[in-house]
Amino acid sequence: MRCEVLAIGTELLLGQIVDTNSAWIGERLAEIGIDSYEHRAIGDNQARIVAAMHEMFQRCDALIICGGLGPTQDDLTRDAIAEWIGVKLVRHDDLAEQIAAMFKVRLRDMPQNNLRQADVPQGAEAIPNPIGTAPGLRCEHGGKVVYAVPGVPYEMQKMVAEQVLPDLLRRSGERSAIVSRSLKTWGTSESALAEMVSHRVDALVDTGNPTIAFLARGIEGLVVRVTAKGSTIEEAEALLTAEETELRKVLGNLVFGADDETLESVVVSELARRGWTLGTAESVTGGLIASRIVNVAGASEVFKGSIVSYATEVKRDLLDVLSPLVVSCEAVEEMAIAAKRLLQTDVAIAVTGVAGPSEQDGQAIGTVCFAMALPGGVVESVQTRLPGDRERIRQFASISLLNLLRLRLEAMPL
Amino acid sequence: MRCEVLAIGTELLLGQIVDTNSAWIGERLAEIGIDSYEHRAIGDNQARIVAAMHEMFQRCDALIICGGLGPTQDDLTRDAIAEWIGVKLVRHDDLAEQIAAMFKVRLRDMPQNNLRQADVPQGAEAIPNPIGTAPGLRCEHGGKVVYAVPGVPYEMQKMVAEQVLPDLLRRSGERSAIVSRSLKTWGTSESALAEMVSHRVDALVDTGNPTIAFLARGIEGLVVRVTAKGSTIEEAEALLTAEETELRKVLGNLVFGADDETLESVVVSELARRGWTLGTAESVTGGLIASRIVNVAGASEVFKGSIVSYATEVKRDLLDVLSPLVVSCEAVEEMAIAAKRLLQTDVAIAVTGVAGPSEQDGQAIGTVCFAMALPGGVVESVQTRLPGDRERIRQFASISLLNLLRLRLEAMPL
Repeated sequence: MRCEVLAIGTELLLGQIVDTNSAWIGERLAEIGIDSYEHRAIGDNQARIVAAMHEMFQRCDALIICGGLGPTQDDLTRDAIAEWIGVKLVRHDDLAEQIAAMFKVRLRDMPQNNLRQADVPQGAEAIPNPIGTAPGLRCEHGGKVVYAVPGVPYEMQKMVAEQVLPDLLRRSGERSAIVSRSLKTWGTSESALAEMVSHRVDALVDTGNPTIAFLARGIEGLVVRVTAKGSTIEEAEALLTAEETELRKVLGNLVFGADDETLESVVVSELARRGWTLGTAESVTGGLIASRIVNVAGASEVFKGSIVSYATEVKRDLLDVLSPLVVSCEAVEEMAIAAKRLLQTDVAIAVTGVAGPSEQDGQAIGTVCFAMALPGGVVESVQTRLPGDRERIRQFASISLLNLLRLRLEAMPL
Repeated sequence: MRCEVLAIGTELLLGQIVDTNSAWIGERLAEIGIDSYEHRAIGDNQARIVAAMHEMFQRCDALIICGGLGPTQDDLTRDAIAEWIGVKLVRHDDLAEQIAAMFKVRLRDMPQNNLRQADVPQGAEAIPNPIGTAPGLRCEHGGKVVYAVPGVPYEMQKMVAEQVLPDLLRRSGERSAIVSRSLKTWGTSESALAEMVSHRVDALVDTGNPTIAFLARGIEGLVVRVTAKGSTIEEAEALLTAEETELRKVLGNLVFGADDETLESVVVSELARRGWTLGTAESVTGGLIASRIVNVAGASEVFKGSIVSYATEVKRDLLDVLSPLVVSCEAVEEMAIAAKRLLQTDVAIAVTGVAGPSEQDGQAIGTVCFAMALPGGVVESVQTRLPGDRERIRQFASISLLNLLRLRLEAMPL
């Protein structure tokens, strides 16, 4: 089974929008073992879309067309598919009613143009879109299948994951229930991670189900993504859960969370479970840690504030740092203790360091010190050396400190 | 003249990397009036790359191939182009020396594989790459031209802007010196901006030189990009400067900077010119403003720190906010005054607001108050209502306050 991706939109060719959809779909196809050898982007031009379909179908069995399902005259995916099959568009009254109902719920008038979204090539099927007005399309012709999905990323993702991929698997004779879990790790390299789970990868070679993939997320770490197929969702989930248990056994606390969790969301929930509040004192990171934490829903239960002491005078005058070297374990401990006291929190974390462009007090660029002030007067600190340029050192320092706190909290009894 | 873009790399198809290069090239081609109707991505497979070249050249005059110029056996762009022309690869000794010299400068051993990057299809030209080891290629065959450029974005951008686009213009019979300037604006809509400069767009219709394009940069504002062509760089620059002057006349202080400038870099340089220091007090933005400012090179001359007072107690106890409503002009003025005093700065800015998920003290989600405490005891504040979700309100508030300060500083005599 070979499935290609065709993105539609003149704005893609003009560079007004970067096409992230094709990469997302490519990643999902690879996970379920369907080959994809070509991604293409074409403008809003019916003749060119139809020509691309003919050309691509010379070499593939299935095609996912992304975009061009909107309500305007520029949205030509429906028309192009009808032309490719050689049929007319037929208005589906039930779709028209659903679209009208969606506008009503949102208390907005429906432009008549929107009814174009209820048009379906004769003989094709509409794919329901529970979160947008544009239904998708599924059309078989000459032993090939084309799926049309919306260009809006979250609508597209839901439709592809829940409707298109299972249908593709069914067509390829595979079990068609698919479930995935992303185990998010931080603190090791891709090769070390691959070595740790190599016995699991080997154990799965014969069945090819579940599959294990490594996805690099840059400075945010590495994701181990498990994808399981089954005849039913329950069967797929049982396989997934069993594999997740095996992987977590070897990966241990390298895994900080799953799916939508982030390092900061895990820190916030670990603190909330204990009823503890958090404050931060940041020098080199300049507020980055605080701004990551406040993006967590429910952060206000836990997070009280931060003192960004970028200048040495602020460290001395506001945070009472007495240590002569402001990039040192002594200084960063003083920062954490002062933040805990000034912000009146149960826990405070602090960071100071040298991001460049030049060294500071004889400390090399990349030198960073972290501290945690914990309940009961416990204060801990560590000094390290981070790679990269200013921006990278700052990002790396923020994540490193969040991870230190996460590990420390997880190791404490509740 | 029609020029298409072909991106090479299995990692693109697998979704491990999102292809941003094609959009960037598409934007540049549109600016200089060269049509581009198709972008394609193909994996690291020589037969499929050659087949794509044949197919695409049926409809276009020029092709930019991006990626696949690295040193490994997977990097097949050179081989594919040689096969397409029907010639062999020839090692260029001068290129081999340049590559070896680049490794020497960086004090690294050169793997023998890297010499593959000195291979050029017979009869083709290498395009110098002053900032990386992979030279580009320029190959003419059968009245068509193919350019191969590296996949590393900043190497690609430099090579396309400085070598490929001028060559394309020369081939199309156009004047081949091109220069561009991005005027960055904040605070108005695309339609309002288009109306303001419509007389300039009309005035340029006949010559088509310079051209004016509007580029949306999301929450960071809108860019008015001017691109001028000439027989010489000097001629192009004269046209560009004249047009920039006209545009700045009508756009006035909507333009906050040009090219690489950001709102925060302009704020930092306006403060530095006056020898003033800056502090911030942030509630709803949670440190976002501080972290934007510290990313500016030279920020340490100006920026002293921030007090992130997320919790009401921190506003009361640390910032001495007495106002009963913590989202109000009174409260935010108190925050700015306290930050100026505690951080001992010449200027302090402050923000408080309601980012949701629920209202606060009867204030609706999106309500945000800004204050500036300036030298001489001047304190000013403003209340507004911002659209969007939590994350968007926070981003919008950060940029809005930086822009308020920028406008206030620009209006002051030096």
